[in-house]
Amino acid sequence: MTRPTLDFFFEFASTYSYPAAMRIGALAGAAGVAVRWRPFLLGPIFKAQGLDTSPFNIFPAKGRYMWRDVERVCGRLDLPFHRPDPFPQPSLLAARIAHVGLDEGWSEEFSRAVYTAEFGDRRAIGDEQVLADLLYDIGVSASSALARARSDEIKARLRAATAEAQARGVFGAPTFICADGELFWGHDRMAEALAWAVRR
Amino acid sequence: MTRPTLDFFFEFASTYSYPAAMRIGALAGAAGVAVRWRPFLLGPIFKAQGLDTSPFNIFPAKGRYMWRDVERVCGRLDLPFHRPDPFPQPSLLAARIAHVGLDEGWSEEFSRAVYTAEFGDRRAIGDEQVLADLLYDIGVSASSALARARSDEIKARLRAATAEAQARGVFGAPTFICADGELFWGHDRMAEALAWAVRR
Repeated sequence: MTRPTLDFFFEFASTYSYPAAMRIGALAGAAGVAVRWRPFLLGPIFKAQGLDTSPFNIFPAKGRYMWRDVERVCGRLDLPFHRPDPFPQPSLLAARIAHVGLDEGWSEEFSRAVYTAEFGDRRAIGDEQVLADLLYDIGVSASSALARARSDEIKARLRAATAEAQARGVFGAPTFICADGELFWGHDRMAEALAWAVRR
Repeated sequence: MTRPTLDFFFEFASTYSYPAAMRIGALAGAAGVAVRWRPFLLGPIFKAQGLDTSPFNIFPAKGRYMWRDVERVCGRLDLPFHRPDPFPQPSLLAARIAHVGLDEGWSEEFSRAVYTAEFGDRRAIGDEQVLADLLYDIGVSASSALARARSDEIKARLRAATAEAQARGVFGAPTFICADGELFWGHDRMAEALAWAVRR
């Protein structure tokens, strides 16, 4: 019997994507769900909504709350959390590299390393050298991964993932979509999404 | 020993305030928390953020998701749920009446009746006759409650509650604020807010 699948749409700049990315592997394994990691960009989706940056920057009271809430969420999960500066971090290159990794089998490990660097270690994930170091740390050749990340093929794949997310109703991150199209938004809906994926 | 208190800011037009209002009494009772029911209006707070209606109307993908998510939430809780038309429902008069009830001891019961009428029975909660019927059903004189609801005193109290909510960082509903100022937003943070309120 094949395991049910769950599409996990995540954005490297997104705060709530961080605990989701760190936890989904273990939770999905326990639930018997195969996760498809889907790195995408929120920027174009926000732009289509008329927003030129994160809603957390546009609506200050909501932003203040989000920083406190993410701190509480990560505290409960024993995940280190520091507020990145600037926020949001530039995530384009990391997202392209993650698409290279999808082909080569190291995307999940790389993605978790990016989140840990960004929110745990306060590193600048828009910096090519930082990303090269993360690739080196997981045993991937940075020069070849970075070269592929800049190829037209990979750029097109990231654009396609973002367009697909938007077409399927994604408006924020993380978002989980079950095989039947049922959509769950937010780290706090992850367990519910996994339960939906396995229901008969 | 006095019980810890929790401020429960709710708006009658707010979808996620509905399950919160229906459940908070039982959950707070079990947790040993005294709830202060705080009816307020989101409209002026949205307006201060540059929004002229609910964000769920302004951002259609988010709105579509919200309707499905609230349906799932209410389904799990065995609460009937129908989408009000129009959305948001005009909530000004109901909120003023709820402030009258705060003085007279029937605000919680009235508030639950308004939510059930709006989301369970698809009734128009902006309609004075509907509100009069709800008051009658809970044994309150509609004519005197409605007269007081239109007094300058009650209007000022609702404005003050809204201004206080905004000053304390409220940007959506439901919002729970503990005595130490810790703020929790959303029906899905209600249990966490109650746990925070009783922690030592």
